[in-house]
Amino acid sequence: MSDKGLLVVISGFSGVGKGTLMKELISKYNNYALSVSATTRAPREGEENGREYYFKSKEEFEEMIKNDRLLEYASYVGNYYGTPKMYVEDMMEKGKDVILEIEVQGAKKIKEKVPDAVTVFVVPPSAEELKNRLIGRGTETKEVIDARLARAYEESFAMEDYDYILVNDNLSESVQSMHSLIQSVHCNTIYNKKFMNNLREDMKRFSEGE
Amino acid sequence: MSDKGLLVVISGFSGVGKGTLMKELISKYNNYALSVSATTRAPREGEENGREYYFKSKEEFEEMIKNDRLLEYASYVGNYYGTPKMYVEDMMEKGKDVILEIEVQGAKKIKEKVPDAVTVFVVPPSAEELKNRLIGRGTETKEVIDARLARAYEESFAMEDYDYILVNDNLSESVQSMHSLIQSVHCNTIYNKKFMNNLREDMKRFSEGE
Repeated sequence: MSDKGLLVVISGFSGVGKGTLMKELISKYNNYALSVSATTRAPREGEENGREYYFKSKEEFEEMIKNDRLLEYASYVGNYYGTPKMYVEDMMEKGKDVILEIEVQGAKKIKEKVPDAVTVFVVPPSAEELKNRLIGRGTETKEVIDARLARAYEESFAMEDYDYILVNDNLSESVQSMHSLIQSVHCNTIYNKKFMNNLREDMKRFSEGE
Repeated sequence: MSDKGLLVVISGFSGVGKGTLMKELISKYNNYALSVSATTRAPREGEENGREYYFKSKEEFEEMIKNDRLLEYASYVGNYYGTPKMYVEDMMEKGKDVILEIEVQGAKKIKEKVPDAVTVFVVPPSAEELKNRLIGRGTETKEVIDARLARAYEESFAMEDYDYILVNDNLSESVQSMHSLIQSVHCNTIYNKKFMNNLREDMKRFSEGE
């Protein structure tokens, strides 16, 4: 129906497994494109320009801000991070659904700027399960886990601002659910105005006995 | 996630095949219940009370109106037709998604009374295809077909009031799409307030180091 792709904003608690979910979604279906952020932080080993991030100098980044080339941006510990508009818009024009994984503050800014964006918050089946997943990694101290849970509690107040929540219980089921969800959103009447107008125009011609 | 079922209102142009689509949906999946209307018209041969319709006397029907037992009602050619509340609410409480097939005026009344109802308008892939399907039946005169197309044109102005449109092209694909669509709606944050509140409460307890 709608030829243009959607902008899909995904957030979720740390440890909920949204990174894996997104990776699986994109490798399983070919109608998605992952938005790549721009940053002024230095590339880490193994990172490639244009894959993990677009690496920019401070001057280049501030030029992008000035020329309104970013959907949103923020700075953390002395570095800028932002979402370049051009790639997102190009992909949407080509009919790809663009997936943008971003934390709650960034998601809020995107929704203000692109009200048609679809926002999904990934949740664990229960708080206990999230705690178990964080402990299960075995790499974090109790203090770090408690801090993450406290952060999750804070972020949980943003859940209601999202269009959808998606429970990440079983990975392959969640990938399927995320795909169904995004494809269903394409059926929303707000994304199909052109199709409906064409249908109505043709019906008019036929009903006039043409 | 949400334990309660949804009320799903389905409309569509005459000849678009929504009856078959609904029948397949309900026989393929067991989480749906079809709403049965009440009417004062006489039962036709083969019709069963409680299956095609709840058959009521004029007095009984007007008693239902008086006691606010109907989600909506209308009268056509001297008979009342309406949607009894009780069955719909019972099934929703049991977690069933209740499917209500109704024309555009009735759908509008339902949406006013039950704003959480999900509304879907079934469309053909094109106006030409709808015309071909009406001609293909081979049972109608040109005048009847033209009248139906004129009616479709009139009804097409209601499409934008629906939440979703669903293109009925290939039957089995459309059944699958309708099912995905309805199940995705369950992920909408407005239907998951209780789940989110519980999750938040548990996170609070855990983040306090419990």
